[in-house]
Amino acid sequence: MRNAEATKARILEAALDEFASHGIAGARVDRIAAKACCNKNLIYIYFNNKDKLFTTVLQENLARIYEALPLTPDDLPGFAGRSFDYAMAHPKFMRLLAWFGLEHDAAGPPERVENWERRLSALRTAQEAGQLGNAFDPGFVFTATLSLVTAYTAVNPFGPSLNQQAIEKPDELRRAITEAVRLIANARPENQ
Amino acid sequence: MRNAEATKARILEAALDEFASHGIAGARVDRIAAKACCNKNLIYIYFNNKDKLFTTVLQENLARIYEALPLTPDDLPGFAGRSFDYAMAHPKFMRLLAWFGLEHDAAGPPERVENWERRLSALRTAQEAGQLGNAFDPGFVFTATLSLVTAYTAVNPFGPSLNQQAIEKPDELRRAITEAVRLIANARPENQ
Repeated sequence: MRNAEATKARILEAALDEFASHGIAGARVDRIAAKACCNKNLIYIYFNNKDKLFTTVLQENLARIYEALPLTPDDLPGFAGRSFDYAMAHPKFMRLLAWFGLEHDAAGPPERVENWERRLSALRTAQEAGQLGNAFDPGFVFTATLSLVTAYTAVNPFGPSLNQQAIEKPDELRRAITEAVRLIANARPENQ
Repeated sequence: MRNAEATKARILEAALDEFASHGIAGARVDRIAAKACCNKNLIYIYFNNKDKLFTTVLQENLARIYEALPLTPDDLPGFAGRSFDYAMAHPKFMRLLAWFGLEHDAAGPPERVENWERRLSALRTAQEAGQLGNAFDPGFVFTATLSLVTAYTAVNPFGPSLNQQAIEKPDELRRAITEAVRLIANARPENQ
């Protein structure tokens, strides 16, 4: 049984590499098997098919990011800084999300939608309590935050490919992103 | 000769559809030929191979966007509003850029890099002239602007898939994006 768990873990690791490099349609199960040093049939036995394997990899990595990055609605710049660090440290996961967005054009597993709604609701509460500016609605604030913290990863076609020099100075990027998120998070309607 | 030009135009149009849907590796030249109602061999005669065809499609669409969206360094929020309209009106081009970023991880044709440098230099001049805030360096200002104006297109995995409702109100999004870019563009160091 322990052996089976170890094999599954190796398959998931190899699958993350393969999907991050080639996307879902382009991924090859035999390359994943070779990399995981296991029989290709085992992959079908454990995960059914390539799509289900992809979903499992996506879900595992989403669960990790939710665990690693609790939202702090009263300190969105702090959350942005930590999210930037995470995004830069997990380029394969960023590519996974980008491929998924292009190939499926869907939100993904239900827990992703639930998480999204929960976070928006927390931001709304923080706005009502005055801990967060209310110039923008919570959905925009969160989308803008995630766009900025991932701007220098592979998900952004205007990011690292055009900004090779910038990503050599992550501390400066972190400072700039945190500050930009602070401006958006603190903004209040002008006539207030 | 006019016939040849018309055929080339049909091929480029069909290729944009195909690349936007399936990416570069996933695109099939015979599907492009079928859609353009031409012999597959003609595509190889006119464009050499699939990669060259992709580059031609990318270059044509980049040239159009540079023409349609001159940068106004003294009015970055205005540029952001126009860019948002363009991005929302050209979903296939947005997908093209996203696939290219994932599959090639490169800036692309030399004119893209030149355009980027030229725009950064214009922003730097505007900062020196005081027409643009200088809390952020021009590269960050421009990357943040492009990330925000394309946040509700397919290039952003935190965009339309999680925000279906938001894109039904493009006027509100346009206002929010313009305002967020204004905050970033106007920002000055706190101790100034």
